[in-house]
Amino acid sequence: MTKTADYTVPGLGKENGEEIAGLLQDRLHALNDLQLVLKHVHWNVVGPNFIGVHEMLDPQTEEVRGHVDEVAERIATLGSAPSGLSGNLVADRRWQDYPLFKASVEDHLAELDKVYTGVIEDHRQLISKVGDTDPITEDLLIGQVKALELFQWFIRSHVEKISA
Amino acid sequence: MTKTADYTVPGLGKENGEEIAGLLQDRLHALNDLQLVLKHVHWNVVGPNFIGVHEMLDPQTEEVRGHVDEVAERIATLGSAPSGLSGNLVADRRWQDYPLFKASVEDHLAELDKVYTGVIEDHRQLISKVGDTDPITEDLLIGQVKALELFQWFIRSHVEKISA
Amino acid sequence: MTKTADYTVPGLGKENGEEIAGLLQDRLHALNDLQLVLKHVHWNVVGPNFIGVHEMLDPQTEEVRGHVDEVAERIATLGSAPSGLSGNLVADRRWQDYPLFKASVEDHLAELDKVYTGVIEDHRQLISKVGDTDPITEDLLIGQVKALELFQWFIRSHVEKISA
Amino acid sequence: MTKTADYTVPGLGKENGEEIAGLLQDRLHALNDLQLVLKHVHWNVVGPNFIGVHEMLDPQTEEVRGHVDEVAERIATLGSAPSGLSGNLVADRRWQDYPLFKASVEDHLAELDKVYTGVIEDHRQLISKVGDTDPITEDLLIGQVKALELFQWFIRSHVEKISA
Amino acid sequence: MTKTADYTVPGLGKENGEEIAGLLQDRLHALNDLQLVLKHVHWNVVGPNFIGVHEMLDPQTEEVRGHVDEVAERIATLGSAPSGLSGNLVADRRWQDYPLFKASVEDHLAELDKVYTGVIEDHRQLISKVGDTDPITEDLLIGQVKALELFQWFIRSHVEKISA
Amino acid sequence: MTKTADYTVPGLGKENGEEIAGLLQDRLHALNDLQLVLKHVHWNVVGPNFIGVHEMLDPQTEEVRGHVDEVAERIATLGSAPSGLSGNLVADRRWQDYPLFKASVEDHLAELDKVYTGVIEDHRQLISKVGDTDPITEDLLIGQVKALELFQWFIRSHVEKISA
Amino acid sequence: MTKTADYTVPGLGKENGEEIAGLLQDRLHALNDLQLVLKHVHWNVVGPNFIGVHEMLDPQTEEVRGHVDEVAERIATLGSAPSGLSGNLVADRRWQDYPLFKASVEDHLAELDKVYTGVIEDHRQLISKVGDTDPITEDLLIGQVKALELFQWFIRSHVEKISA
Amino acid sequence: MTKTADYTVPGLGKENGEEIAGLLQDRLHALNDLQLVLKHVHWNVVGPNFIGVHEMLDPQTEEVRGHVDEVAERIATLGSAPSGLSGNLVADRRWQDYPLFKASVEDHLAELDKVYTGVIEDHRQLISKVGDTDPITEDLLIGQVKALELFQWFIRSHVEKISA
Amino acid sequence: MTKTADYTVPGLGKENGEEIAGLLQDRLHALNDLQLVLKHVHWNVVGPNFIGVHEMLDPQTEEVRGHVDEVAERIATLGSAPSGLSGNLVADRRWQDYPLFKASVEDHLAELDKVYTGVIEDHRQLISKVGDTDPITEDLLIGQVKALELFQWFIRSHVEKISA
Amino acid sequence: MTKTADYTVPGLGKENGEEIAGLLQDRLHALNDLQLVLKHVHWNVVGPNFIGVHEMLDPQTEEVRGHVDEVAERIATLGSAPSGLSGNLVADRRWQDYPLFKASVEDHLAELDKVYTGVIEDHRQLISKVGDTDPITEDLLIGQVKALELFQWFIRSHVEKISA
Amino acid sequence: MTKTADYTVPGLGKENGEEIAGLLQDRLHALNDLQLVLKHVHWNVVGPNFIGVHEMLDPQTEEVRGHVDEVAERIATLGSAPSGLSGNLVADRRWQDYPLFKASVEDHLAELDKVYTGVIEDHRQLISKVGDTDPITEDLLIGQVKALELFQWFIRSHVEKISA
Amino acid sequence: MTKTADYTVPGLGKENGEEIAGLLQDRLHALNDLQLVLKHVHWNVVGPNFIGVHEMLDPQTEEVRGHVDEVAERIATLGSAPSGLSGNLVADRRWQDYPLFKASVEDHLAELDKVYTGVIEDHRQLISKVGDTDPITEDLLIGQVKALELFQWFIRSHVEKISA
Repeated sequence: MTKTADYTVPGLGKENGEEIAGLLQDRLHALNDLQLVLKHVHWNVVGPNFIGVHEMLDPQTEEVRGHVDEVAERIATLGSAPSGLSGNLVADRRWQDYPLFKASVEDHLAELDKVYTGVIEDHRQLISKVGDTDPITEDLLIGQVKALELFQWFIRSHVEKISA
Repeated sequence: MTKTADYTVPGLGKENGEEIAGLLQDRLHALNDLQLVLKHVHWNVVGPNFIGVHEMLDPQTEEVRGHVDEVAERIATLGSAPSGLSGNLVADRRWQDYPLFKASVEDHLAELDKVYTGVIEDHRQLISKVGDTDPITEDLLIGQVKALELFQWFIRSHVEKISA
Repeated sequence: MTKTADYTVPGLGKENGEEIAGLLQDRLHALNDLQLVLKHVHWNVVGPNFIGVHEMLDPQTEEVRGHVDEVAERIATLGSAPSGLSGNLVADRRWQDYPLFKASVEDHLAELDKVYTGVIEDHRQLISKVGDTDPITEDLLIGQVKALELFQWFIRSHVEKISA
Repeated sequence: MTKTADYTVPGLGKENGEEIAGLLQDRLHALNDLQLVLKHVHWNVVGPNFIGVHEMLDPQTEEVRGHVDEVAERIATLGSAPSGLSGNLVADRRWQDYPLFKASVEDHLAELDKVYTGVIEDHRQLISKVGDTDPITEDLLIGQVKALELFQWFIRSHVEKISA
Repeated sequence: MTKTADYTVPGLGKENGEEIAGLLQDRLHALNDLQLVLKHVHWNVVGPNFIGVHEMLDPQTEEVRGHVDEVAERIATLGSAPSGLSGNLVADRRWQDYPLFKASVEDHLAELDKVYTGVIEDHRQLISKVGDTDPITEDLLIGQVKALELFQWFIRSHVEKISA
Repeated sequence: MTKTADYTVPGLGKENGEEIAGLLQDRLHALNDLQLVLKHVHWNVVGPNFIGVHEMLDPQTEEVRGHVDEVAERIATLGSAPSGLSGNLVADRRWQDYPLFKASVEDHLAELDKVYTGVIEDHRQLISKVGDTDPITEDLLIGQVKALELFQWFIRSHVEKISA
Repeated sequence: MTKTADYTVPGLGKENGEEIAGLLQDRLHALNDLQLVLKHVHWNVVGPNFIGVHEMLDPQTEEVRGHVDEVAERIATLGSAPSGLSGNLVADRRWQDYPLFKASVEDHLAELDKVYTGVIEDHRQLISKVGDTDPITEDLLIGQVKALELFQWFIRSHVEKISA
Repeated sequence: MTKTADYTVPGLGKENGEEIAGLLQDRLHALNDLQLVLKHVHWNVVGPNFIGVHEMLDPQTEEVRGHVDEVAERIATLGSAPSGLSGNLVADRRWQDYPLFKASVEDHLAELDKVYTGVIEDHRQLISKVGDTDPITEDLLIGQVKALELFQWFIRSHVEKISA
Repeated sequence: MTKTADYTVPGLGKENGEEIAGLLQDRLHALNDLQLVLKHVHWNVVGPNFIGVHEMLDPQTEEVRGHVDEVAERIATLGSAPSGLSGNLVADRRWQDYPLFKASVEDHLAELDKVYTGVIEDHRQLISKVGDTDPITEDLLIGQVKALELFQWFIRSHVEKISA
Repeated sequence: MTKTADYTVPGLGKENGEEIAGLLQDRLHALNDLQLVLKHVHWNVVGPNFIGVHEMLDPQTEEVRGHVDEVAERIATLGSAPSGLSGNLVADRRWQDYPLFKASVEDHLAELDKVYTGVIEDHRQLISKVGDTDPITEDLLIGQVKALELFQWFIRSHVEKISA
Repeated sequence: MTKTADYTVPGLGKENGEEIAGLLQDRLHALNDLQLVLKHVHWNVVGPNFIGVHEMLDPQTEEVRGHVDEVAERIATLGSAPSGLSGNLVADRRWQDYPLFKASVEDHLAELDKVYTGVIEDHRQLISKVGDTDPITEDLLIGQVKALELFQWFIRSHVEKISA
Repeated sequence: MTKTADYTVPGLGKENGEEIAGLLQDRLHALNDLQLVLKHVHWNVVGPNFIGVHEMLDPQTEEVRGHVDEVAERIATLGSAPSGLSGNLVADRRWQDYPLFKASVEDHLAELDKVYTGVIEDHRQLISKVGDTDPITEDLLIGQVKALELFQWFIRSHVEKISA
């Protein structure tokens, strides 16, 4: 099964290219799982604020699917073969399935907050790793974190309690 | 973990509602896996016809994602909780991961042809099962098969050999 | 006052055409009343979730108005004269005026849930009646029920309670 | 049943607010009935000029529905609960159901001309009543009459006879 | 000359596929002829209501051309080779050329009414034939008949006489 | 008062430029008058086919206004000063004011037919005059005649009588 | 020659209708002349700021043409026949042709400023005249003056000198 | 520092022009502050209904910014120099800074309700002041109050309590 | 059967008008057949480059259908009755049905190349014939040939062999 | 008054989050003041190049308002409460009100050039401060400086003198 | 290196095709250089009218790039290989590089005027050469000259001096 | 000839500004040449995959032209005069003209791959050079490399061979 090409991007070195692609594959699984979870919550949330949350999640899904594509095509550009397969995802991931089905807005948002924390922390770690070798990949990840943190703020703004 | 509501759609009966929802969950996994595979091929196909196939798959992904949403919201409408989670998908599915990574247009299209055959056959079987009880679900599935068979024809037209 | 034409659609028989048109007139009144009620709730709902519900109802109104038009033009196509008049509607309908004015989101959604149940049950009954004679009318009604059930799910998702 | 709020618009006085809202409720019924009649004619008109008239009425319906919304939200803004219900409409209105079903373009336009005359005369009377107390409502009604008179001119231009 | 593929749609059986494709070829010729006739009338109609009828026929042509494409791609999807050729059409059709050139609105609409009756009756017969074997094709034809009957109603509304 | 520049278009010669610009000024007056007449008819036409004719004239006005602009900017490009003034127009024109006010569709279309004949004949004469010297202006006029003749056909199709 | 109908708008009185229509005819000539002048300047302005002024005038022309249409259809709505003819315009107007052809930005804007002053002053006088009788026409003119004054400000901002 | 021009709008009188412009400057500060406050709330609101309120405020900001522009250009049209500067605003305003930062939906909406009351009351007072002198400015303010009152109703509908 | 009007375009002469219309009828058949053939190939092409060619043909069909309309309306404008009927087409044409059904990209493109050569050669011959009599028709045909030659270049670029 | 949340973005540390948010508040005031100044100039600029500069500033205002939103939502995302209040702005800023009202293009552009220099210098200083701790905020500021420097170039290009 | 195909357009003759293609190559270089120069001026113009000229040149660049494409595809359609390479351009052109960098609006427009004169004169010469052989190419060039002369008028209108 | 301004961007220092502008001029030539080459290939590619590659190159050209503009305006923003002239480009570049004319898809893509490698390597070198001095320019170049590498991946995916 062919998984790497003879090339990587000009001026980087084939070894660096393969290493960064490998690290990005982990991010690809995380983002792919995140888009599935966002849809899952979109369908299963219930209660008084249903419609607002139901609709708030769709543009997030849309943008995260864009991130998935961006990371996968970056892996391919670096010369490796990205995996977008569910079996690979479940076998390789370092986290569990999302725990809720039908549940209230509050419970779902509290869980989603944790999911976002996980994805963002791992993205930030990778940013600091690849910055010296490949500023292009670094910039791509920074742009994604900016969006993911904004989405997380949306979610946190719902669950935040104000002490009187 | 809450997975069913107290209601189903008017005029159907709660038992029927739950049974059909259960059958649709299998279709939801199949369609969710299909959208992941279509993107995977989009990234990994290579060779002289790269650009045509790469671009042909994006509207297919877009429409299949619409099918995913439609089936999941039908399950919820019938009173059950749809699962869009990757762990559930891999545990419950009756098929394997897609076998190729970087490969030629020909090889990928031959594999995709098989994937489509699987999804369509199962959809057709469910159509004949639910028609008497719930014409709404039947109509939804017929519409999806119409689109899926058209997409399969696109793929078959690439690989068909003409005997002179 | 002229209420029927000399024709009905090709291949159906004038008697069948008139009978189906008569049954559809009842659905036309139901849908016309539904669009008026949806606007009425849009204006009279108050309380913490006001804006979400206020805005959720407008696309529902828009689509139900499309159903009104579709049913009325089907009646005309079948050779009869559809009635869209309020006096006819109130004289012929088998239900009462919607009971609430200014009220909370919860109370309005609970009432709307009942209204949708009524409309959907009657639509489903007509589907089973016309299927053998006129598959075109059957298909039209199935498409409307699919949308109406989805809207009802939106409303039910707001009022559903999750047992912890 | 709650029909008024504790407030009216700033600077108007609660009594004035309620009185104007009451007068506007009559206009709301008239406009709501007008939109139903316009659709009814859209479906029932026949004869050589069918398509032109059939299509001319749809933008009129669209705009009158906008007027309905505008008047109802003004009533709510003034602190009262607007009624958009068909039962209320038929019980409170000072006019009869539209008299025609399937009829020629000429007959329908002659009847519609009378309907418009009724709605416009009552709007004009209300303009002169509310002008001193509430110029906002006055301006809103003036804008609607401008549109309604233009639509009536369209209809009159069809039926006008030119003396040689 | 190659006219069939090795496949048909999954779950149908190659024999069924070929038979349905054969029946659809007759519909393809009928719809292809209909789009040519609609344009022909668009150019040749004269008299007082010229512009309304001239413009009413263009969206009908547009939609019928969509039906042509839909039926042809269904034939291909079923594994056969659709014929869109004028020579085949004229040799195989069971009807004559449209009889009028420059003529009044009334005469053209009376002829078009007959053309629509022919196409719709044959479509309805095929619906009842293919329903058990292939619900996808059935659904496709039902959708087309719904549109064709609506167009015929437009035409009939022009020529209908109201007895006073 | 400055009416000519020091330049004309490259390769034409200043004398030719001024002469063609002078001939185009006559066309500018004709087209400017035509756009005013088209609006005038748009407002004054009455009778059974009112709405179709009322609406048919607006795109004609729009296109003729484009012709006005095109001819005027061509005059300027050739180095002369175009006149768009009503006083100049009335003083210099070789035709009378349009004769009708409120009148039937038939009478207005018969008059408009004559107006178009006048404008087109003069345009065609100018085409044959400027063709040798300035193919750019010739092409501009041909394009306008093509559109004007099509508009005239629309008008003629309304008034044409078919001998049985 | 027919110039008035048997009707005016409901609730106004035929005499008032004719009188206001007569006063509006003067405004129609003024606005029609203004749109011609704006185009004339658009073509004849030269100098360093050519492009800015050339482009600034087009949306003004567009809006003034809208005013022309609005006033003419108001005249027709009131029951009279509007005149949009150049011969009438020149015979009836109380002002001269615009004085410049090719000229600098400064000179043209100074002249246009005067033209606007004339049109606005006459509009304002008519507003105070018709306010008591016909608030609809009053509101229409108020809306136009609002736009015309804004356009005049654009022009004045170009020619204004700042005293140090 | 130059703050007035030599002109005001035609037919008004320079003294009146300056006085009205002065009164409008107060409204300009109020609207400019309102747009800043709306954005401030947009960022600082928290709690279960976050997303609905967060999104409801953006079109309000957009429209109020349009009002700011409209009032400022009216001041300029009247011949004065509008001030859009924050230092001027804070020095001249007759109200305090908005009192909340991060706070619940309920608390923010209660405060915004007061802000709207203030702006609308002052607008209404100015309407009655300028009506006799300058109907154009009166009309402009009426249009703004219409929108502001509708926005306030949105906010009040959230906080209104229904007495059982 | 009426096939000619009493008029032709101004300044041309009725005899010339009829002759040119007759020559254009041959072009109308050719273009009508071409649009049918382009769709036919769109459905029947197979092989590795399927999707690119399948999609390339749709904008060609769209544009050729525009040519059909343009030629037919030119014939009507010249005073004759255009024929868009399949029976006429097949009886009058000087060429055979397109020879292929399901075939490879290469074979279809080679055949289409010949079809285009035929249509273009005949168009070019007609250009040289009508140029002296009717420059409007000449210009119309030149514009069509420009587009047809570009489409043929697309096709030739696929089949061209480069000698190394 | 609540001004901070319990959280900051994942992987940054609450202290860092608060410190960066504090530094961004200064930038928020600067950008908020800049958008007010740009509108102020938009209204007060006069002289020969009025329209070009008047229109050039609107897209700049639009983009700077986007920067305001972006910075404020970043502060909130970092867990602090952004202030968008005019009173706070004026109390905390380190610069004076913009000095001009009605003035020439040249004078306004010279002042705006200085305003931009101030904002950009402070942005650049913050970029170098936050780069190590928070690359997301760094990237956000770099993007804003890129746009602000381009806008400043537009302004400088107007005032630059070319030595011959 | 392959530079010609075995074909030219139908009905022209291979020798003619090659000769015209050769003459068009010179025009391709001229247009390609023109688009580069227009962008160059777009960046380097300075002074009081900067923004108007800066923005006026972008639609000119856009249209000239369209001309480049049109000429190059015409060369290919005629069977030759167009050169769009900068080295070829500079080696083959009969003119020098544009002489200015940063310069005032006046100086740049004076230079651009000369560039346009050169391109237009050569285009006009080629029109007269190819007219007899290939009316399609002639028509293409006429269309381009029409646009180029209009652009030149824009430029000339800026620099023209009016003698008092 | 003026090539530098008195300013550079705030906070950078005039010397640094000039140096970076000089380095960017080399990138400007490379990108300008690349857009010319992409169009050249767009016209000259032939063979079975013609249409896919022909169309794939247009969005690449569009985006590279955007890069050209962005780099040139950055040079101007930094205070220098960008050169977009073909003569300068050819004199200063460190590479040869693109070697192919009419050639197969494979040959062209193999050459384009080399061209992209050259442009990307030089861009990456400049990124590492300017990062410390000017992060704005660094960010601009990173964004361009991200796009250029993606385009190169498109091209490489066509020519890559998969070992079985």
